Amino acid sequence: MFRELSEFHDWLAQRRAANTYEVSVVPLDQLDGWGFDPDSGNIRHRTGRFFSVEGIDVTTDHRETASWTQPIILQPEIGILGILVKEFDGVPHCLMQAKMEPGNINTLQLSPTVQATRSNYTRVHQGNPVPYLEHFVAPRSGRVVFDALQSEQGSWFLNKRNRNMIIEVDGDVPVLDDFCWLSADQLKELVHVENLVNMDSRTVLSGMSFLAPSGGDGDALHTTEELLSWFTEAKARYQLDRRVIKLSEVKNWVTSAERISHELGRFFEVVGVDVRATNREVGQWSQPMFAPTCRGVIAFISKRIRGTTHLLVHARTEPGTGDVVEMSSTINCSPENYREFPADRRPRFLDYVLSAPPERVLVDVVHSEEGGRFYHAENSYRLVEADDDFPVEVPEDYAWMTVDQLTNFVRYGNHVNVGARSLLTCIAR
Amino acid sequence: MFRELSEFHDWLAQRRAANTYEVSVVPLDQLDGWGFDPDSGNIRHRTGRFFSVEGIDVTTDHRETASWTQPIILQPEIGILGILVKEFDGVPHCLMQAKMEPGNINTLQLSPTVQATRSNYTRVHQGNPVPYLEHFVAPRSGRVVFDALQSEQGSWFLNKRNRNMIIEVDGDVPVLDDFCWLSADQLKELVHVENLVNMDSRTVLSGMSFLAPSGGDGDALHTTEELLSWFTEAKARYQLDRRVIKLSEVKNWVTSAERISHELGRFFEVVGVDVRATNREVGQWSQPMFAPTCRGVIAFISKRIRGTTHLLVHARTEPGTGDVVEMSSTINCSPENYREFPADRRPRFLDYVLSAPPERVLVDVVHSEEGGRFYHAENSYRLVEADDDFPVEVPEDYAWMTVDQLTNFVRYGNHVNVGARSLLTCIAR
Repeated sequence: MFRELSEFHDWLAQRRAANTYEVSVVPLDQLDGWGFDPDSGNIRHRTGRFFSVEGIDVTTDHRETASWTQPIILQPEIGILGILVKEFDGVPHCLMQAKMEPGNINTLQLSPTVQATRSNYTRVHQGNPVPYLEHFVAPRSGRVVFDALQSEQGSWFLNKRNRNMIIEVDGDVPVLDDFCWLSADQLKELVHVENLVNMDSRTVLSGMSFLAPSGGDGDALHTTEELLSWFTEAKARYQLDRRVIKLSEVKNWVTSAERISHELGRFFEVVGVDVRATNREVGQWSQPMFAPTCRGVIAFISKRIRGTTHLLVHARTEPGTGDVVEMSSTINCSPENYREFPADRRPRFLDYVLSAPPERVLVDVVHSEEGGRFYHAENSYRLVEADDDFPVEVPEDYAWMTVDQLTNFVRYGNHVNVGARSLLTCIAR
Repeated sequence: MFRELSEFHDWLAQRRAANTYEVSVVPLDQLDGWGFDPDSGNIRHRTGRFFSVEGIDVTTDHRETASWTQPIILQPEIGILGILVKEFDGVPHCLMQAKMEPGNINTLQLSPTVQATRSNYTRVHQGNPVPYLEHFVAPRSGRVVFDALQSEQGSWFLNKRNRNMIIEVDGDVPVLDDFCWLSADQLKELVHVENLVNMDSRTVLSGMSFLAPSGGDGDALHTTEELLSWFTEAKARYQLDRRVIKLSEVKNWVTSAERISHELGRFFEVVGVDVRATNREVGQWSQPMFAPTCRGVIAFISKRIRGTTHLLVHARTEPGTGDVVEMSSTINCSPENYREFPADRRPRFLDYVLSAPPERVLVDVVHSEEGGRFYHAENSYRLVEADDDFPVEVPEDYAWMTVDQLTNFVRYGNHVNVGARSLLTCIAR
């Protein structure tokens, strides 16, 4: 436990010093254990395990572009992201882990107590390689605070879902090296530090009711029935057709021995990394990663309506999510990718967010996305207060929701996308 | 409006007499407009519209059989099933339609106000062939009571979802021929009449809060968090792999010019029907239908726990639903299909339900499934009260829920399967 956050930062610096990490970007064709499948061009591990990079052909009436192909990560299994919670002197604390991931900025970030793949947790009873996993698999002794399947980045993953869990326990919990207890209040502070609380932690914390206490519809502009109807209507209104194709059939992308890039240098690249770390289960490995070419912006516009803060939620279509739309932040894009687009094809409200005067930017913090798959993938997470002239009436793809209402949709799983969940955690008061 | 239900039955008899209907089963290869695709063997309409019958290859660790192939209906579009509600003298009434469907027992059944396909509702502004549709498409004037995407029969449809809507209006609503207002109380009576309230009506009515008023977790055995966790865990625990195959690749099924049947005479047949009706948009048409070989049983076991009625909900895997499991009634099967199975491979609790003494069978009514796709597909809908010895502790695939809790999951869509929704409506008090 830390009385002051400075103690935590000291501890983190110690953990960083206690281990060595080396991550180097290397050509795709020199990755140990990985290779291009001669028939499909797909990137696979020689064992068929972990994940693969394949192609997807997308057609939709709900994006800036009507159809395109791109590389995408296939990893259909459901992993566990779990945070263990325990009260000390009546104050709930989360057991967080200082964990290295190859794609992290700063190498070490704060992870959930457990990040486990399906093969980790299904073989748990034949020896447990993941500490604390026993608190997250049946039969458990703790109390379930939150347990939902949630989508991951729909631009880069096809139908990837993880199980987000928060389990509260009473008994003694030994604290291993690299783990520490942080109070909810301390975490609320730490999410404002750049590139510290990792994406897995942010998405799980969005389900933590004591970070954003739920209170029903209260003074909300819309009832939950109306919001569910708005969401249902967007799913029925738009179409999204996806077809998995060979990576070699992806158009407008250039594959070399080195990397895969879009011909205009946009979006992301597929690169290879070699990793050495002294505190991971495996000391050395190689893998492909997705590396965005520029920083993204994930922003909610907020407005006081009926005396209550409302967030402007977007029903957004991504190529890889399970359904036609999910509830997204108002903005979720990399502005660079739209630089040459005419005004009417740029994401709506993007210019409003980018040009907001500093006094209206209530939250602004840079975080990176999951460092196990994404290399230096940074987004600016922002909360932008609308000026008084900003209309309450919004286009049909958008709806005003209170923080409580959006948090309630998080509870039910597969409603709120990963960017919006992560941002919800960053704006918790 | 009907003061007495006898008046309603007189009206229905009149509507039946006012029109003529003829449905005859004909060989598949003589269906006007439909044919076997020469390459795939799939059954398609020559325009490519409506739906197709293809094959599916299923592998799962969560059914009585580990893998199989079967014919399945593909109709990926989202239709609208909508009921219009209006208060008369403070009493909510539903606008119901006496509608003929070729697969109906009794020809005419009570349908929702609107059953519309996507092509109906997306072209609504170029002339509206479906009466009352304007109340269900934007911009609407009525109040949304319920609006959710719900799965259809996962044994027979692949990823079929319909939008279930209840819209309340205040203004005058002209009542067309074949339509009538029925109060919620009258509908609660009529769901106990055999083969009268059709499946589309039953699934929509399960979202009607005044049929099953919601009251949170109250005296429930489990909190909503615990139930969501139980559901999440079942989705993570089991696997369901589906692959669409050519109908000609389906094994253990016999295709003739006449029909498609399972080689053991089990499950269902694909048959053709010719239809003539004087009160449908199209007076005459042909189509393939799925015809089950025997009657099914859809049953909840109920038990008083903490003074409140709880239903035993099963996390059930069907080949065609969108996710690995949905919340199902305790029993949802055709017992005949399991006649020769050893006791340990028969559906759990089936024998308990089938052998329940009459005084414990609180509801028992036969209804048919959607008559637009399924021919004389009957199920016995039952509510069976458990005896005092029935354990509160149940296997991990099962959970006790209150009626309010299950109804709340119906609100969020894609949690509760069609059989359980339909049965919820039949047991509403």
